[in-house]
Amino acid sequence: MSSSDIFIGEVIGTAVLILLGGGVVAAVVLKRSKAQNAGWLAITFGWGFAVLTAVYMTGSLSGAHLNPAVTVGIAIKDGDWSNVPVYFAGQLLGAMVGAFLVWIAYYGQFQAHLTDPEIVGDPEKKAVEGPHDNGGAGPVLGVFSTGPEVRVVWQNLATEIIGTVVLVLAVLTQGLNDSGKGLGVLGALITALVVVGIGLSLGGPTGYAINPARDLGPRIVHALLPLPNKGGSDWSYAWIPVVGPLVGGAIAAGIYNIAFA
Amino acid sequence: MSSSDIFIGEVIGTAVLILLGGGVVAAVVLKRSKAQNAGWLAITFGWGFAVLTAVYMTGSLSGAHLNPAVTVGIAIKDGDWSNVPVYFAGQLLGAMVGAFLVWIAYYGQFQAHLTDPEIVGDPEKKAVEGPHDNGGAGPVLGVFSTGPEVRVVWQNLATEIIGTVVLVLAVLTQGLNDSGKGLGVLGALITALVVVGIGLSLGGPTGYAINPARDLGPRIVHALLPLPNKGGSDWSYAWIPVVGPLVGGAIAAGIYNIAFA
Amino acid sequence: MSSSDIFIGEVIGTAVLILLGGGVVAAVVLKRSKAQNAGWLAITFGWGFAVLTAVYMTGSLSGAHLNPAVTVGIAIKDGDWSNVPVYFAGQLLGAMVGAFLVWIAYYGQFQAHLTDPEIVGDPEKKAVEGPHDNGGAGPVLGVFSTGPEVRVVWQNLATEIIGTVVLVLAVLTQGLNDSGKGLGVLGALITALVVVGIGLSLGGPTGYAINPARDLGPRIVHALLPLPNKGGSDWSYAWIPVVGPLVGGAIAAGIYNIAFA
Amino acid sequence: MSSSDIFIGEVIGTAVLILLGGGVVAAVVLKRSKAQNAGWLAITFGWGFAVLTAVYMTGSLSGAHLNPAVTVGIAIKDGDWSNVPVYFAGQLLGAMVGAFLVWIAYYGQFQAHLTDPEIVGDPEKKAVEGPHDNGGAGPVLGVFSTGPEVRVVWQNLATEIIGTVVLVLAVLTQGLNDSGKGLGVLGALITALVVVGIGLSLGGPTGYAINPARDLGPRIVHALLPLPNKGGSDWSYAWIPVVGPLVGGAIAAGIYNIAFA
Repeated sequence: MSSSDIFIGEVIGTAVLILLGGGVVAAVVLKRSKAQNAGWLAITFGWGFAVLTAVYMTGSLSGAHLNPAVTVGIAIKDGDWSNVPVYFAGQLLGAMVGAFLVWIAYYGQFQAHLTDPEIVGDPEKKAVEGPHDNGGAGPVLGVFSTGPEVRVVWQNLATEIIGTVVLVLAVLTQGLNDSGKGLGVLGALITALVVVGIGLSLGGPTGYAINPARDLGPRIVHALLPLPNKGGSDWSYAWIPVVGPLVGGAIAAGIYNIAFA
Repeated sequence: MSSSDIFIGEVIGTAVLILLGGGVVAAVVLKRSKAQNAGWLAITFGWGFAVLTAVYMTGSLSGAHLNPAVTVGIAIKDGDWSNVPVYFAGQLLGAMVGAFLVWIAYYGQFQAHLTDPEIVGDPEKKAVEGPHDNGGAGPVLGVFSTGPEVRVVWQNLATEIIGTVVLVLAVLTQGLNDSGKGLGVLGALITALVVVGIGLSLGGPTGYAINPARDLGPRIVHALLPLPNKGGSDWSYAWIPVVGPLVGGAIAAGIYNIAFA
Repeated sequence: MSSSDIFIGEVIGTAVLILLGGGVVAAVVLKRSKAQNAGWLAITFGWGFAVLTAVYMTGSLSGAHLNPAVTVGIAIKDGDWSNVPVYFAGQLLGAMVGAFLVWIAYYGQFQAHLTDPEIVGDPEKKAVEGPHDNGGAGPVLGVFSTGPEVRVVWQNLATEIIGTVVLVLAVLTQGLNDSGKGLGVLGALITALVVVGIGLSLGGPTGYAINPARDLGPRIVHALLPLPNKGGSDWSYAWIPVVGPLVGGAIAAGIYNIAFA
Repeated sequence: MSSSDIFIGEVIGTAVLILLGGGVVAAVVLKRSKAQNAGWLAITFGWGFAVLTAVYMTGSLSGAHLNPAVTVGIAIKDGDWSNVPVYFAGQLLGAMVGAFLVWIAYYGQFQAHLTDPEIVGDPEKKAVEGPHDNGGAGPVLGVFSTGPEVRVVWQNLATEIIGTVVLVLAVLTQGLNDSGKGLGVLGALITALVVVGIGLSLGGPTGYAINPARDLGPRIVHALLPLPNKGGSDWSYAWIPVVGPLVGGAIAAGIYNIAFA
């Protein structure tokens, strides 16, 4: 793969991932959305099918990492770090583009939600994705970035690490079961359902970033967008969904090299 | 493919698509249905499996476009517009047949819903698929056609364009990942799940037409059917779910030609 | 396939189908079940995965028709009726075995539900799968057989016909898209999801029997079991979910022979 | 397969199975989880995707039994018991590791839940996975082990046997339909959906252990962990989800040998 194919693939793929992933959170939490209150199952399937769509689309261009933790895991497994910077750059840019497109697609819903006196004036109603202790975070930060329900640094970090180990280990082992035949498409489907599973099973405490670009890119966009009454971007938490997944990806590669290689 | 196979395939496929797609909305919103209030997840999976069933059934006849936006995207990609009129005609006729069959299958539910004094007399309860600002639209138009929650022309158009770009780009790239092997069936499955994902993630603002025939054909049938107290067919909105998806299909083909070809 | 393989395959397959299909209704409607009130989505996915499990298991023995309407459709398509009686016998017997196993698996739940004074004494609460006009039907008939929400003979019949046409046409066309490769397993999966789709989209009015054996076998078992306060078996409706699906299967074969053959 | 590959594969696979399976119960029932009250559908899909992830990951190492009932069924079918002890040991150890990881990932949620005066003081609210007669069981035992809604020994045993027969028969027959091609990956997917189906359809009475290691390993961990106010581990019930599944696995192998071999 050429560097430009990798870059373009990662930008398009991560943009689609965040457009659909951030989109489903917007759909479920914002006022004046047909999907309002569709629940946690909608959010987890929405993120899973976001992965499916993005990987299916861009696998032929860049291999569809779409996640720095996956890139790190593959780099450690293969012992080849040469393309890592290109992957990271494409992923972060793509995530920002995706978050911006969510804002366009849900413009009227953001406006309606953020100017509703009941929501803006009531700290309880500021919360999205269920009630949570989001400190200084504003009422719609959850459409962009993750945040913990209970703010315990070691646990929040551990949960992100554990979730990412499961994800990256599933990605690294995917060729072993099937001689690689047909895995382009079937692998995309199963990876997507693994992500639904991680969301259902390990998403409760922190909202399962399991991907540094997925969390950091949209958080930057949240800070930049002219949203009314948007509140803070919770920068004090921002390092956990970056460091946790990177550590998780490295651990997964270690487990792979010891047990599967 | 012969013109007659294309026409027959598109009529049958689009009829099945709208029968099952309109059917799930009827199931969830109409009184005296076992599925009443089954929620947004039921609607989005119902539409997705409608795509699966229709594509799976008619792929061998016409390639199962079932959507003028897909036909436009493929025509631009291939530079071949010769069959486009046959595709369009089959899609519009099929969509009308499907909408008529929804009326047959849910006849008693339409009657019960539309003659219920509580529903007909109360503008709030006229709304279907959750509360929305459907202007002059009657209480069951949502079974047939889409409508926005917040009526902002540029956003409504943008949301339909964005959703259709994702759909058509997924269709155009589907052969790249897998040398085309087995994609008849697997491709149908993944396209269907992509449609579930688009519904979950981008359906909140406008109800995701992402297909001109899906919206226009049933809207015409709504205008023609002898439904009691049916209200207007919201013709002032009707151009958006036609123009938006066509523009989206063209943009997707452009992205494909630049980034993937 | 030998007659004995066909018979054994259809008995086992239809028993598994009804065990899991009737089981999910019991799970959702009966008191003292962990799944009580899990909703329509649970019922439709439960029936779909019942089809998946049963077809996946018995496809190699009998081809896994598991449904007289499928058997009729295939017989018309192939012009070969020689094995039809064996299929029918296996299907009816299997359906009865499956319904009996549901009773075993949910014994305590049936007892708790049917001896609860609030449920037995209140005609409203007798209803299962949401409120419906089940005439003389008792409080748990819905675990065994289907019944209409609005009792309009022509519509009830039409809904069962339409649903079965979709199902049988999907079965008949399944080989066309993919040269038959891998369809044993993938075909089972897609047929299962088509059944989820039919349930979501066309199940609202009558509960989608779309299979004469699925409805008649369990209805006979309901009439025979020593359930307390079980009410009647609604025999006046029983012909519709037998005749409708058989007609639907024949129509699907006709459409196949005209448009696809 | 070498003994060490089997052991390592079963430890990793069963740990992932229980991490994600116990995790989804924790997510749905514990306070301060974003997924609280996400419902039975979330639990059943969560367990199914747990199976998918674990089988997909470890199939190449150990064949991914991850369940003593599957190991027994395969041993009877093949007449080869030589590796059974290694499988059992790996499965039990893996299940305990998985349950421990659930505690880490949900540490703050366990603390919040178990120190909430409303929950600890109220026997009704102690129940998890819906109200049930869990005798001496404490408020969070359901995150670790199963328990019956109605405590009738013969029925509880029968329900576990029936569910396991369906599971193990599906595993044993999976190669028959498709000449074994591609079943590594597709088989994992379909087995996972069969498990979702068993959960939806047969999980209502006992919570569907259908796997001795899945129930016993986490129950031991529950007994050992320093959880505040955790209540008893319901050891009087513990033999049923061990014996039932083992009997079910043996019956499935018997059916296989008679009807399918």
